[in-house]
Amino acid sequence: VAETSGEFGLIEWIRRRVAAHPALEIGIGDDAAVLNWPSEKTLVTVDMLMEGVDFTFPEASPEQVGRKALSVNLSDIAAMGGKPIAAVVSVALPRRHGAELARRLQQGIEQRAREFDVALAGGDTNSWDGPLVISITVLGEPSARGPVLRSGARAGDWILVTGEFGGSIAGHHLEFTPRVREGLLLAENYDVHAMIDVSDGLAADLHHVLDESRLGALLFADRIPISAAARATTDGKSPLEHALSDGEDFELIFTVAPETAQALLALPPFDTPLTHIGFIEAAPGCRLQSADGSQRELPALGWRHEL
Amino acid sequence: VAETSGEFGLIEWIRRRVAAHPALEIGIGDDAAVLNWPSEKTLVTVDMLMEGVDFTFPEASPEQVGRKALSVNLSDIAAMGGKPIAAVVSVALPRRHGAELARRLQQGIEQRAREFDVALAGGDTNSWDGPLVISITVLGEPSARGPVLRSGARAGDWILVTGEFGGSIAGHHLEFTPRVREGLLLAENYDVHAMIDVSDGLAADLHHVLDESRLGALLFADRIPISAAARATTDGKSPLEHALSDGEDFELIFTVAPETAQALLALPPFDTPLTHIGFIEAAPGCRLQSADGSQRELPALGWRHEL
Repeated sequence: VAETSGEFGLIEWIRRRVAAHPALEIGIGDDAAVLNWPSEKTLVTVDMLMEGVDFTFPEASPEQVGRKALSVNLSDIAAMGGKPIAAVVSVALPRRHGAELARRLQQGIEQRAREFDVALAGGDTNSWDGPLVISITVLGEPSARGPVLRSGARAGDWILVTGEFGGSIAGHHLEFTPRVREGLLLAENYDVHAMIDVSDGLAADLHHVLDESRLGALLFADRIPISAAARATTDGKSPLEHALSDGEDFELIFTVAPETAQALLALPPFDTPLTHIGFIEAAPGCRLQSADGSQRELPALGWRHEL
Repeated sequence: VAETSGEFGLIEWIRRRVAAHPALEIGIGDDAAVLNWPSEKTLVTVDMLMEGVDFTFPEASPEQVGRKALSVNLSDIAAMGGKPIAAVVSVALPRRHGAELARRLQQGIEQRAREFDVALAGGDTNSWDGPLVISITVLGEPSARGPVLRSGARAGDWILVTGEFGGSIAGHHLEFTPRVREGLLLAENYDVHAMIDVSDGLAADLHHVLDESRLGALLFADRIPISAAARATTDGKSPLEHALSDGEDFELIFTVAPETAQALLALPPFDTPLTHIGFIEAAPGCRLQSADGSQRELPALGWRHEL
């Protein structure tokens, strides 16, 4: 007999809501989900968000938190040039209002899952006396050209980015659209050498590409696309500093051969702005060149968890 | 340049330790892991453990928590008759001693992963001011006969269980061996109609099978295998009650046709004890028959999260 309250009542409520999906043979309600989705290679990524660190209530709504928790993972799949297929969700719910919170989280997750045709395959629902913690794992598949890694940049590549950077904390981090369509269009139709999504910050994440590719870069300060939110900051840091270091932009940084870059910029395959911000170079490190031609070293500014 | 402290230092430490695995094309260090593991169907399951709910320090060591966090997922894959392939881990680490805790968790996870040939494919490392939260997602593949579901029980089936039940809180819940080998041997070599692992409790999890199969059961009280820990309890509940309701035994309950059960009991395919505890019946509900022949209704006793 299906229960209508408590943990099993909530699971039953979710189970009835969750849409069928061609990849989902067995969804919520068994010991594991069964995906019927034959593929050679599988992409898998996980991200955990914690109340008080990655969002706060009531600044964020539960629906926004659910959407963000799925979106940060979709952004990782986008950065591999992949297509997301399915997600599983685990939550630690505060005991007070936990059921109401869970339903609103679920609605946010479902909305985003529908937009990107992602199967909600299962989860684990827990309650405790602590703050909300939500962890989502997303499975995907690479494009037919294979996954796009961080390590594939080549000296001479042009460095391109989608969208704008900085000031995400003002709201973008709860409302961004993961660049899944852009990442997949790029990976399917162009020879993308390396790609990453910007979660830690433009400088920090570019450094990840440089470290993995064992190369350096030259960036042009006046080409960095700076968001209106970064321009509106009044904390003494310049808009450019915000754009380089704030993080959670969830835009893509990628590198391609010069002729590919020129083709992309001449006839972009999507409406999202594309900007050429610099070059991959053989010399290690990352140099930022100002409009007057002077250069300074750009360290891996950005967010990291202290341990 | 690889960092040696903080979040990226820890990730680098884990990355260097983690073993290569034939299924793992790209492991820790990119936006997503890439599994090169062609299969028709994929099993996926997730479980989250929270300090103060699923374990407490110092009763549990960090290594035990890491092992348990992986093992509970392996138990779910076992209950599908599947083979685990890869895992991803997300953690929220208490800021105090977080790096030390993370390293010891990782050692526990690695040890269990090696035992069951599971690829550690990636993760997400976070720190905060709260207690430890760890969520692991495991991917697996069903046996060639397909996944074993909760819903496949048939009237007349014999109900069999592995191992013993009750009193897990005394230590078993931190030290159990997930029944992966048993589940896989059963699923590969026998026509197992339905299977589940016991996390909520023997009665509660049998009820899940009965609910999903829309059938009932008759259990024999004197056939329930009761653990020494359940017999040693002194809280006024009987050892049998403990065995039926305690949970976290992580044994398998499964149902098979009578002739299959007889073959299994006559020549068990593994050393783990196998016990015939009752029958699947057409009449809904679960009846527990005492040695004197009297019957009482057995409700879905067991653990659930209050919401």
